Amino acid sequence: MDTELIGEPFIPQRTLLGPGPSNVNPRVLQAMLSPLLGYLDPDFLKLMDDVSAMLRQVFQTRNALTFAVSGTGSAGMESGFCNLLEPGDVVVIAVNGFFGERMSDIARRQGADVYRVDSPWGQPIDTDAVRQEMKKHPAVKMLAAVHAETSTGVLQPLDELSQIAKEYDSLLLLDAVTSLAGSPLNIDEIGVDFCFSATQKCLGAPPGLSPVTASEKAVAAMLNRTNPSRSWYLDLSLLFDYWANNRRYHHTAPMSMVYGLREALRMILEEGLENRLNRHTRNADALWAGLESIGLEFVVSREYRLNQLTSVYIPEGVVDTDVRRALLYDYGIEIGGGLGEFAGKVWRFGLMGESSKDINVLALLSALEAVLPTHGYEVGRGVAVQAASTSFANNRSN
Amino acid sequence: MDTELIGEPFIPQRTLLGPGPSNVNPRVLQAMLSPLLGYLDPDFLKLMDDVSAMLRQVFQTRNALTFAVSGTGSAGMESGFCNLLEPGDVVVIAVNGFFGERMSDIARRQGADVYRVDSPWGQPIDTDAVRQEMKKHPAVKMLAAVHAETSTGVLQPLDELSQIAKEYDSLLLLDAVTSLAGSPLNIDEIGVDFCFSATQKCLGAPPGLSPVTASEKAVAAMLNRTNPSRSWYLDLSLLFDYWANNRRYHHTAPMSMVYGLREALRMILEEGLENRLNRHTRNADALWAGLESIGLEFVVSREYRLNQLTSVYIPEGVVDTDVRRALLYDYGIEIGGGLGEFAGKVWRFGLMGESSKDINVLALLSALEAVLPTHGYEVGRGVAVQAASTSFANNRSN
Repeated sequence: MDTELIGEPFIPQRTLLGPGPSNVNPRVLQAMLSPLLGYLDPDFLKLMDDVSAMLRQVFQTRNALTFAVSGTGSAGMESGFCNLLEPGDVVVIAVNGFFGERMSDIARRQGADVYRVDSPWGQPIDTDAVRQEMKKHPAVKMLAAVHAETSTGVLQPLDELSQIAKEYDSLLLLDAVTSLAGSPLNIDEIGVDFCFSATQKCLGAPPGLSPVTASEKAVAAMLNRTNPSRSWYLDLSLLFDYWANNRRYHHTAPMSMVYGLREALRMILEEGLENRLNRHTRNADALWAGLESIGLEFVVSREYRLNQLTSVYIPEGVVDTDVRRALLYDYGIEIGGGLGEFAGKVWRFGLMGESSKDINVLALLSALEAVLPTHGYEVGRGVAVQAASTSFANNRSN
Repeated sequence: MDTELIGEPFIPQRTLLGPGPSNVNPRVLQAMLSPLLGYLDPDFLKLMDDVSAMLRQVFQTRNALTFAVSGTGSAGMESGFCNLLEPGDVVVIAVNGFFGERMSDIARRQGADVYRVDSPWGQPIDTDAVRQEMKKHPAVKMLAAVHAETSTGVLQPLDELSQIAKEYDSLLLLDAVTSLAGSPLNIDEIGVDFCFSATQKCLGAPPGLSPVTASEKAVAAMLNRTNPSRSWYLDLSLLFDYWANNRRYHHTAPMSMVYGLREALRMILEEGLENRLNRHTRNADALWAGLESIGLEFVVSREYRLNQLTSVYIPEGVVDTDVRRALLYDYGIEIGGGLGEFAGKVWRFGLMGESSKDINVLALLSALEAVLPTHGYEVGRGVAVQAASTSFANNRSN
């Protein structure tokens, strides 16, 4: 076979305002440049401890099992199901979007008896229906839900779900991929038994790791299994041994990613979790004011709308991909298209982590004002930017 | 919970001469600094194509399914077993070290009927015993072996295994974590059906991705499954759709790692695969001359010894961890300890990828000459370095 040389990469600078990855601060990339260490080097083990300690602060938990799985958010999702469910276990999964469906798929692959409770996309979970389903079974091992549905932009209130899980003595599993460090989430106070997230959304690091945390009850469930987890790579009892207990080798940790996550977590704690949430709120307010001013219709009502991810219906007559392509190539802005039943029907605007900036809000609205009229949707020039600016000004004076 | 700030990381520069990770070239780290792109950004998809194309050159294959799984080498290992085996399938696994054992563990978790054929650690696989085992079963779905056993340093000859797999119409799965780009390996010529590797050994990138390749026969086996793979995250049919077919979203690719792997592959092809293998041979020769000159005993006979990983027995009376600690803290050199039944009994010296350098050979031998005598093993000062220098000189004049 002849050798064919491939040239330098072309990697343009994008403003990432879709469903993730979001932009990362140069400090985080810089940290990833640090030299590699052995996976049992005492200096690396110390950095792992730092990551666990900071993740506990961000998850707001005292859970001993708190670390980052060596895969993207979906690996963290799978780790929850493959460690907590055994074949034949009953799991009730609340589905109101693409990622609830993914959870159902993953749970089925563990041999669990999966009962889906579906709510319409764009709306919160129907907790009455969840309660009805829970009642039907003599024992429900786990109740699973998505905190921030990235496919729709719904923020799920957690009190009622937590109450139901407690009533039925079920483990509560929560997908916090898009919510962690972008929406309020207190794992211990709510009583979440297993939670997973991802680095590339509101945490502000590149994709590649999935922070997870498990309550004592969840750890007991995984240690008391009849058979080992169907995944060795995602076996949390083995990973717990490596991250926190006897430091037994499991796999070669992706240290560059760990360096990046560590720096991103440092930046979150320096900013302060509350300040960070307020920043996400302030920028969302301005974006919404702008989108509203040009008549775009929100998928999610204000009460349940995520600050870090806003979905709008694509106006009639406008070709989804034409607009997204123009934003990408003419303005260097990435927004998200729809997933699953929302494909071709909605756009998703993300303002997550480092991407949640006032200048990004203004840039996105300016670009939409320029692009939409040439693709069949009239917009008064400057209207959206003006509305956003007013929102910023009002929030500043508060 | 009070916020507790954590400071700048302490990340020393190590010379990584253990079982991996190996050092990476600054060009690779530099590439990882490139801005993030969306997981469906056309400019990112192009980079993925480049990675697949270059991996084909390194694996020496025309396999369409050739890409990098978003996890470390063990994730690639698991992807092979969870996609190719279904519950009840018979798999024969040749075990002559720690990673053969890991394969058996992973295969069992897929519900397969696992038949281990054990050979002593430090020796190649007993292919007669493998043949005997294959004969016992009406059908063997897969024969699995490790090409380069990282726990022992054995390079497994492949012709006979390939012959056996063909005779019994079994899929041949090969662990090439430590061998790819360090030992000769021609996937198509040998007839390997599934092969996985890792980025942090001879490929010269940080850990975090696992290159895999699958033959048409293997792809057919995974597409014709009765039930989906037990892992969704590692479902190769879904990953194939994302990497090569209809570009359907699966997970958010860890693009920084992809950038790094792409640059590492570029460097391999610029050097030339054959030149690279020769470099590994030349440096191993010199290391062996040095180790031999001070009387250290090799675990593996020369015929089966890996160029990129050399195991020696720890001399009697010498405390394993004392020596490794002295090398690490006084000389900044990491070597590997033993795994499994070799724990505390052997040291493993890696010269992989960017770490396979003449100056590293000389530095390691100098450090051993300085450290061993203070830990109970007499070494004539300068002897090992002299032997290695002579080896380098002889190889240069060839």
